[in-house]
Amino acid sequence: MEDLINALNETLAQLDYGKKPTELYEPIRYIMDLGGKRLRPLLTLLSAKLYTPDTQPFILPALAVEVFHNFTLMHDDIMDKAPLRRGKPTVHTQWNENIAILSGDVMLVKAYSLFLHTPDVHLRKVLMLFNQCAAEVCEGQQWDMNFESCDTVSEADYIEMIRLKTAVLLGFGLALGGVLAGAPESDIELLKSMGENMGLGFQLKDDLLDVFGDAGKVGKQVGGDILANKKTFLLIEALERAVGKEKETLMYWLQAKDYLPAQKIQAVMDIYRALEVDKLAEAKIKAYFDLSYAQLDALKVSEAQKTPLREFMDWLIAREH
Amino acid sequence: MEDLINALNETLAQLDYGKKPTELYEPIRYIMDLGGKRLRPLLTLLSAKLYTPDTQPFILPALAVEVFHNFTLMHDDIMDKAPLRRGKPTVHTQWNENIAILSGDVMLVKAYSLFLHTPDVHLRKVLMLFNQCAAEVCEGQQWDMNFESCDTVSEADYIEMIRLKTAVLLGFGLALGGVLAGAPESDIELLKSMGENMGLGFQLKDDLLDVFGDAGKVGKQVGGDILANKKTFLLIEALERAVGKEKETLMYWLQAKDYLPAQKIQAVMDIYRALEVDKLAEAKIKAYFDLSYAQLDALKVSEAQKTPLREFMDWLIAREH
Repeated sequence: MEDLINALNETLAQLDYGKKPTELYEPIRYIMDLGGKRLRPLLTLLSAKLYTPDTQPFILPALAVEVFHNFTLMHDDIMDKAPLRRGKPTVHTQWNENIAILSGDVMLVKAYSLFLHTPDVHLRKVLMLFNQCAAEVCEGQQWDMNFESCDTVSEADYIEMIRLKTAVLLGFGLALGGVLAGAPESDIELLKSMGENMGLGFQLKDDLLDVFGDAGKVGKQVGGDILANKKTFLLIEALERAVGKEKETLMYWLQAKDYLPAQKIQAVMDIYRALEVDKLAEAKIKAYFDLSYAQLDALKVSEAQKTPLREFMDWLIAREH
Repeated sequence: MEDLINALNETLAQLDYGKKPTELYEPIRYIMDLGGKRLRPLLTLLSAKLYTPDTQPFILPALAVEVFHNFTLMHDDIMDKAPLRRGKPTVHTQWNENIAILSGDVMLVKAYSLFLHTPDVHLRKVLMLFNQCAAEVCEGQQWDMNFESCDTVSEADYIEMIRLKTAVLLGFGLALGGVLAGAPESDIELLKSMGENMGLGFQLKDDLLDVFGDAGKVGKQVGGDILANKKTFLLIEALERAVGKEKETLMYWLQAKDYLPAQKIQAVMDIYRALEVDKLAEAKIKAYFDLSYAQLDALKVSEAQKTPLREFMDWLIAREH
């Protein structure tokens, strides 16, 4: 896994997105260099490795997924008015909004350019899957923004939102590796669904870690979602389950204007624990990961070849950051 | 030509960009329905018609060019803080900036989806040409924004900016028709360059019409560029040529804060005429169109087959709106 990540980062460091005007291309280098776990292109390589030992030819299309992911981050940060990403100023803060819009646009074009490093025989399939995925990611972001002005959001609507906004790109990452490595059509469908289930578990874990994670391990202050009244799985479930005194307290904190941040975080955490929405989230996460393991089992590949992807999944489910 | 435009508009009216969330997809329908001359997809069909009589199979890829063009308009309008487009509220005014960013993003994806209606044999070539063109259009927009904060811009830099921002898409439109209809490689290169020359003439004519056009025919108040101190070809040339009293007067109007709009327009127009920058623009426009006619002559196609494209070019050069 380390080797694959190193191969991805080495090629990433050498990518030439363009030179001039510098205002257009420097922000691309900047956001790509902020780091990150490179999960999505790693999924592509691990998935290709199920079918063929040499993943070197798939690095550039795999990186298209990473460039696309960072394009969505650049534009989402504008929409969310986020000042920081990974502890550094966001592109629209470091430069300005217009530059973040336009650099993002050209990043999406560059992602498509990287997909052209796909052999003719697979090009149409790759682009069809990607176009669907990319449109769905935009739909997910729009639902997420819509939910901000909703009083309540149902669990089903929330799950569908994170499926679109986050999970389908993991599904595409896995499917891409399968397509590139010549997997049978039935496996490609399985890989896509498997990535979506992993993505759902992954996002719910994110919601959980933001509240109950270890600040030292997560690498940022916990409780941000609580302070922002963000409609995460935990809050949605808590709003649905709370009654009487607990409902009153929860509504008090959601509407409170003047408070000590640590106090609000503690109070809402206490309600989450009392309502056991943390346990509910953990059960959901496990259920989605169990589904993805079952799909891994069903792939038409020897058990030995599944080991790297299985180990990655074990790591993903156990992560504390 | 009427038939081709009707065929384009009919298919355009039936395109399904997506349904939900409505905030994401309604703005696409809205901007596409604002109208416009459909010049770019028309170029694709006219160019294909040089090589084959039936252009029906090329309508969807041709419309990809129109969808892409409108995507750039949606995002440019945010960056330029433009309240109106074709007399109607811009998307970010009618909805909001976030929706205009995200709808634009998904429009770019939809443009790529339309390009997939290209046979396998031409798909890679089409996408390579388009990716280059799309990145250049972004570069042109960034140069245009950069120029706003420059004291002076050279003629060469201005021409390069409008080449990127406007002309390369006309070049791509023509090249696309050639590729789809199986034109020889040398003709595709010629078509691309021919479209760029037409595009340069087209944009310079736009600059000219904004000042010297007939408001009734242009369909909007003339003089907008003058009031905005926009660094068009005319202003750039005037700044370079003006000396003494004329320079003083020009600088006075560029820095003036309180004035009657009509008075500023008249004064700057007078300077343009005195310096003959209008004549200079006309000569440039003619030179670029002459180049494109010469390239039309050089195409390896019978004179009779060139007639529709030639007539379109005659119309484009004579247009008064």
